[in-house]
Amino acid sequence: MSELKGACIFGQSGGPTAVINASALGVIRTALDANCITRVLGAAHGIRGVLDDVLYDMSKEDPEELELLQFTPSSALGSCRYKLADPDVDDTDYRRILEIFKKYDVRYFFYNGGNDSMDTCNKISKYMLKVGYEGRTMGVPKTIDNDLNGTDHCPGYASAAKYIATSCMEVYRDAQVYDTGMVTIIEIMGRNAGWLTAAAALATAKGAGPDLIYLPELTFDMDDFLRKVERIYREKKSCFVAVSEGIHYADGTFVSEAKTSATDGFGHSQLGGLAAILANAVQQRLQVKVRGIELSLLQRCASHCASLTDINEARLAGKTAVEAAISGETDKMVAFQCSRANGSYRCNMVLQPLAVVANVEQKIPHDGINETGDGLKQAFIDYALPLIQGEPDTAREDALPRFARLKKVRASAE
Amino acid sequence: MSELKGACIFGQSGGPTAVINASALGVIRTALDANCITRVLGAAHGIRGVLDDVLYDMSKEDPEELELLQFTPSSALGSCRYKLADPDVDDTDYRRILEIFKKYDVRYFFYNGGNDSMDTCNKISKYMLKVGYEGRTMGVPKTIDNDLNGTDHCPGYASAAKYIATSCMEVYRDAQVYDTGMVTIIEIMGRNAGWLTAAAALATAKGAGPDLIYLPELTFDMDDFLRKVERIYREKKSCFVAVSEGIHYADGTFVSEAKTSATDGFGHSQLGGLAAILANAVQQRLQVKVRGIELSLLQRCASHCASLTDINEARLAGKTAVEAAISGETDKMVAFQCSRANGSYRCNMVLQPLAVVANVEQKIPHDGINETGDGLKQAFIDYALPLIQGEPDTAREDALPRFARLKKVRASAE
Repeated sequence: MSELKGACIFGQSGGPTAVINASALGVIRTALDANCITRVLGAAHGIRGVLDDVLYDMSKEDPEELELLQFTPSSALGSCRYKLADPDVDDTDYRRILEIFKKYDVRYFFYNGGNDSMDTCNKISKYMLKVGYEGRTMGVPKTIDNDLNGTDHCPGYASAAKYIATSCMEVYRDAQVYDTGMVTIIEIMGRNAGWLTAAAALATAKGAGPDLIYLPELTFDMDDFLRKVERIYREKKSCFVAVSEGIHYADGTFVSEAKTSATDGFGHSQLGGLAAILANAVQQRLQVKVRGIELSLLQRCASHCASLTDINEARLAGKTAVEAAISGETDKMVAFQCSRANGSYRCNMVLQPLAVVANVEQKIPHDGINETGDGLKQAFIDYALPLIQGEPDTAREDALPRFARLKKVRASAE
Repeated sequence: MSELKGACIFGQSGGPTAVINASALGVIRTALDANCITRVLGAAHGIRGVLDDVLYDMSKEDPEELELLQFTPSSALGSCRYKLADPDVDDTDYRRILEIFKKYDVRYFFYNGGNDSMDTCNKISKYMLKVGYEGRTMGVPKTIDNDLNGTDHCPGYASAAKYIATSCMEVYRDAQVYDTGMVTIIEIMGRNAGWLTAAAALATAKGAGPDLIYLPELTFDMDDFLRKVERIYREKKSCFVAVSEGIHYADGTFVSEAKTSATDGFGHSQLGGLAAILANAVQQRLQVKVRGIELSLLQRCASHCASLTDINEARLAGKTAVEAAISGETDKMVAFQCSRANGSYRCNMVLQPLAVVANVEQKIPHDGINETGDGLKQAFIDYALPLIQGEPDTAREDALPRFARLKKVRASAE
């Protein structure tokens, strides 16, 4: 494979994670150091920055600030949820992207995101091939949801899982401190896949976690749920439940959709999540103290509780993407192939065709969930525990996080 | 002062904090090592354990597990919110306490808690004096609310403040990652005093915190609030607000009480907090994406984000209480006297009469709040920043917290 000389564009897409910028660092640092990559351009708000021609010249950044990206949560360049059209139906965006690629002589495109982002990556790659524009496209995985196909796990998941497990252990202690009894319901992200909620089982495995864990992989039954909570509460005067935001009834209706029928005194529909709805249902039935907790945005940006393993893997994924593209690979995503034999964890970087990973959601296999459908089996613990290991030596200033401060100098065509 | 020989009882009361058990360690370790203290008894669920005669023999605990108490959040011995009657009206509880004191030859009583607990302490102390039972009573401060009178600050506050500031910095990054705009409202504990909510200003001082901070020390005006949010949102396409759960209108009604008028589709009253109510109001007015976040229990038990300064001071407060009682002091609370001259922070242990601290709530002085009533002045930053310093070398097992495991061996009268 002959050397391909030209500029690269890097973009971040989809929801934030604690380590998405570790991948950014891996891409940017490796690209800046590569001889064949003439310019390293960061796209503002993912593919939108390409379409709008808002690109930053990453060589203008202070190297020390770039290093701080590994401890900085949430897309440093900005993100988007923009979905490209089918190029056979409407190729406007693709022609614009090609125009920008030509303007800056872009030959490398690296895109960091989840399912939709890999789809974007795949479409751009296919289009460039079709119009005969020489370039290489690589996807870098990222999603707290951990639902990408073709990889053992996704960067970002482990840090969110660690935060969730840690928080559950702390809340567990808090929730049983009084002798008066309490039911606690914690709502965790994950609309279709239950990986994040399953992380609460890591706390349970340590003897300080939820009694019941409800995942979107199974059908939710309100009566059965209330019966179980009541039984556990009667037994030990406390009950701790973790639920995925995506739990749904047999007909597919989300349990959280009940909120649309709630109105405040002025007839306005009332905001408030699943935890509040379930807390309400338990309170009505048991007449005991109930606390609903929603982990909300906290769980996806908690870099102060990140996994060092996650940070290192995220960074390595970015580096590998650049190295693979330079070596001639294209239309692929960096994926993780892991072994956990004899308690020793190893993670190898491999490449997967984008078509394999795009638009397929990886869920928790049913045989990983316990027989009563309200907890995880040991196999899940063995899977997840190695991923959360290691404490990063996070950069701090006055005992608070010191996030990277990027200059974001706009690039102009040379 | 002649040496007083006898047993001691230690109890924990009120809401959990991240460092309450560091004070427990300070009391228990010092008492176990003291020659004049013949037995160290831990009361289950505070004063309830005394009344119910459920006391643990702390000498039976593994010293290494006791050491882990400094990293273990939420009362290890259990807590209560039991309020003793006025002894002049009903002395039943006091006679029972005296009975237990006599049964175990208790001469020292250490009680760890907030305002109400110091009141309990004070009443017991006065009663023992009245009936001529020789004993010494010392209060050990504890409250995330930071509202105890007669002390620079309270153990537990700093760790909660650090967690709040850190989380705000992370949420700040998350909340502005998209170019589509968002209003974020974060609800923080503090019914009457705004110290916890004010901690969000530490994030703002680092350039990554709330634009607006509303404290219960001032009157809340919904129209003014909505106008400010709208102005900021129009200006920068995002607005981040921190509110204390205790904000109230001019007539004293809590803003959160609006929730009592909300019902779900079945006519049940709907649970859900202030953040949801305000998010709803902003959404109605601005028709933009709004996210309400409630820090809930997470903020008071987040030992994974504790301040080492807080841990050390909490432990020292416990130790000082025992040493002071042994030296003859009684009816006092350990308090902090701090200096922050020339950027160097010093904290000295002093004693305050229980009558001074009991039942008085210390609020944020109005001259610490900015002129527009929606933020803190530099004086608050200078006050709070030294308190959150230092990262504890937290005990971990498999990268998750390793909390103390107490045996809790029931004590019997000898």
